[in-house]
Amino acid sequence: MAKQNKAEILTIGDEILYGQINDTNSQWISKALDAAGFRTIRKTTVGDGRGQILQAFREAAHRADLVLITGGLGPTADDLTKPCLAEFFNCALSMNEKALKEVSAFFQSKGLELTELNRQQAMLPDCCEPITNELGTAPGMWIKNGDQVFVSMPGVPFEMKHMMTRYILPKLAKTFHTEVVYHRVIKTIGIGESWLSEKIAPWADSLPDHISLAYLPSLGQVKLRLTASGSDLESLKAEVAGQTERLYPYAGKYIYGFDNDEIESVVGNNLRKEHLTLATAESCTGGFLGHSITRIPGASDYFKGGVIAYANEIKVKMLGVDESTLDQFGAVSEETVRQMAEGVAREMGTDIGLATTGVAGPDGGSPEKPVGTVWIGCHFRGETIIRKLQLWKDREVNIQASSIAVLNLLRITLSKTIEEKT
Amino acid sequence: MAKQNKAEILTIGDEILYGQINDTNSQWISKALDAAGFRTIRKTTVGDGRGQILQAFREAAHRADLVLITGGLGPTADDLTKPCLAEFFNCALSMNEKALKEVSAFFQSKGLELTELNRQQAMLPDCCEPITNELGTAPGMWIKNGDQVFVSMPGVPFEMKHMMTRYILPKLAKTFHTEVVYHRVIKTIGIGESWLSEKIAPWADSLPDHISLAYLPSLGQVKLRLTASGSDLESLKAEVAGQTERLYPYAGKYIYGFDNDEIESVVGNNLRKEHLTLATAESCTGGFLGHSITRIPGASDYFKGGVIAYANEIKVKMLGVDESTLDQFGAVSEETVRQMAEGVAREMGTDIGLATTGVAGPDGGSPEKPVGTVWIGCHFRGETIIRKLQLWKDREVNIQASSIAVLNLLRITLSKTIEEKT
Repeated sequence: MAKQNKAEILTIGDEILYGQINDTNSQWISKALDAAGFRTIRKTTVGDGRGQILQAFREAAHRADLVLITGGLGPTADDLTKPCLAEFFNCALSMNEKALKEVSAFFQSKGLELTELNRQQAMLPDCCEPITNELGTAPGMWIKNGDQVFVSMPGVPFEMKHMMTRYILPKLAKTFHTEVVYHRVIKTIGIGESWLSEKIAPWADSLPDHISLAYLPSLGQVKLRLTASGSDLESLKAEVAGQTERLYPYAGKYIYGFDNDEIESVVGNNLRKEHLTLATAESCTGGFLGHSITRIPGASDYFKGGVIAYANEIKVKMLGVDESTLDQFGAVSEETVRQMAEGVAREMGTDIGLATTGVAGPDGGSPEKPVGTVWIGCHFRGETIIRKLQLWKDREVNIQASSIAVLNLLRITLSKTIEEKT
Repeated sequence: MAKQNKAEILTIGDEILYGQINDTNSQWISKALDAAGFRTIRKTTVGDGRGQILQAFREAAHRADLVLITGGLGPTADDLTKPCLAEFFNCALSMNEKALKEVSAFFQSKGLELTELNRQQAMLPDCCEPITNELGTAPGMWIKNGDQVFVSMPGVPFEMKHMMTRYILPKLAKTFHTEVVYHRVIKTIGIGESWLSEKIAPWADSLPDHISLAYLPSLGQVKLRLTASGSDLESLKAEVAGQTERLYPYAGKYIYGFDNDEIESVVGNNLRKEHLTLATAESCTGGFLGHSITRIPGASDYFKGGVIAYANEIKVKMLGVDESTLDQFGAVSEETVRQMAEGVAREMGTDIGLATTGVAGPDGGSPEKPVGTVWIGCHFRGETIIRKLQLWKDREVNIQASSIAVLNLLRITLSKTIEEKT
């Protein structure tokens, strides 16, 4: 098995430490390195201080084969990456003719005069090979130190991504000989992490050593990530596909997709395929369910619309819920959610009606219906499936969890229909 | 000047190193620490490996007064934070009775059985004080090591944020003695960062040295953060209040609130105060506007409901839009948005009707109505104010920006009404 090269990502900038901007670069770089067969072993952010930066260089140089640095390359005095690289690698900063030509050409192309401050951007450590920045003024740097490589890139995301894609990744592929790593994410819904892990324990325990499993839980969902490493991508893919097949007897009914699949697009694609239309009647989710469905491009193929029936009078007027039902059972009840799901499908002329009603919190609970009590319903072809949820104390969490649960109800309904047809 | 305590943020999880999930926690924590008077000196992410985690503990312990750790607390075997903390602080892992009681109560409240795996979540290092997790099953841990504090929190963002706000930040304020830093955030809407910065330049340039200004732009909004430092909180507050007053002549009409105010709650409070009711008619925002309004607790005081009129037939049937209007001008037009806003107020019997219709993208644009063309309307007391927006190419951004713009239209309408009364 080829050795997997270790990478570290180093981000430089006070603004990230203080939370003033979000670091989106390091996730992007992680993914790119992962796809290129590197194993990222650490991400570090330090501020704009010489001592901190040099310390981070020292630590990374001890551990990693590749150190990717972003930030600290601006033209102002608080940008210290270049002098720190020069100090760390014990070389001088001097005007790099290739870089100066490129920086000058960049300014000329924009009809701008080259200021002295910008001219300074072509001052680089002697030990580096400059990397062209086609979208900005700060050149990148490639420093080879024995078998180890340090790369410094600008922190501006679009400049960095372009430089990485166009120059750095191809150069890395030539320089390092990397092991093949293949990931597959299996997406489940409707079961908690601990229950799922108990159900699939025999399968998980039988995975071979070169395939590892990780649980990635999020609200109402658990992702299972299989990571396989070896020498041949195609055989790893085949092996992971085989292991995925073996998982179905244990947890097949919770699996809705893979990798970048989302529950909203999976049910959306099934609706489109089956030529079915959908409408929503929302009380406690207040529009979030409609938003979840319509944030998927092309949702208008199957989604006709919805009613946010927040007040009881709207449930009566727009959805045809009986006033007597509301009086007798209350808005948060099996009877009301049934009439909401059936009512919206009837009023909007759709095949399917989804409904939610509940106590999202933080107030409004009672001993019989505490905060987190939610009823969800899915009406389809004369039948309405209803579930009661007992959720949390947090309003936003309850809204999102209710929405995910009713989408799961729709998924189950559709999969029965598709099964019956086949 | 009191010493500023140094903090490090440590994130544990292979999924972040490999770029499979985005780490949003560390930015949130950075901001919270900054506001609490700590100086974050480093952020580190390591994977789920014992050696890596212990090494990161050692390094952080050398440098920081406070180490905040997230992740690695799940019930499965790949979660190593607890055994590593026990090893690092040289104490045993044992069943913590307080934590067990809380985990059991959490399961009971959901009517679920406590599995052995979940019971294990109450096994904690002896040297820690457990921190209640009200929204999940993994308790937090507070470990005092001389003058230094290590805090471990779950990686699930809503659990972490709740725990941090409710328990950790107050405990930190009691434990550490920090210099007095006072932040005030002034919230503006409806003007871009560069325009705003031009308008307020004379004010910004005249701020004294111990009050600094930061621009924090987000979609459709710009926050201005004033940070004052000194020895006495009350005098800092008075000074910042005075500077805020001086800002009004430059940018008063864009200011909608301060600190934790949100545009949805500011307009909601004004609606409540004026005894006005609201309904929404959404096409391109697909429910997001309704969700924005109803995610605020107590929205039922003023929000009656909404129609998500995604298909044209729903605009006709549920909102009374004329078919001839749709034929002649199209769904994305001034005429349609007017009839939607007026129609929903009429159908739902509310004082105010808000409406959105547009091309959210990525497809569906035309030369006359390119992606990002959005019409918004606000109907109130016989009058309907309408605006055309030309937004971006990104679907989610356009949905959110449209929703914020129509809420701003409502804010302006309400402030005129309130002004006329006074």
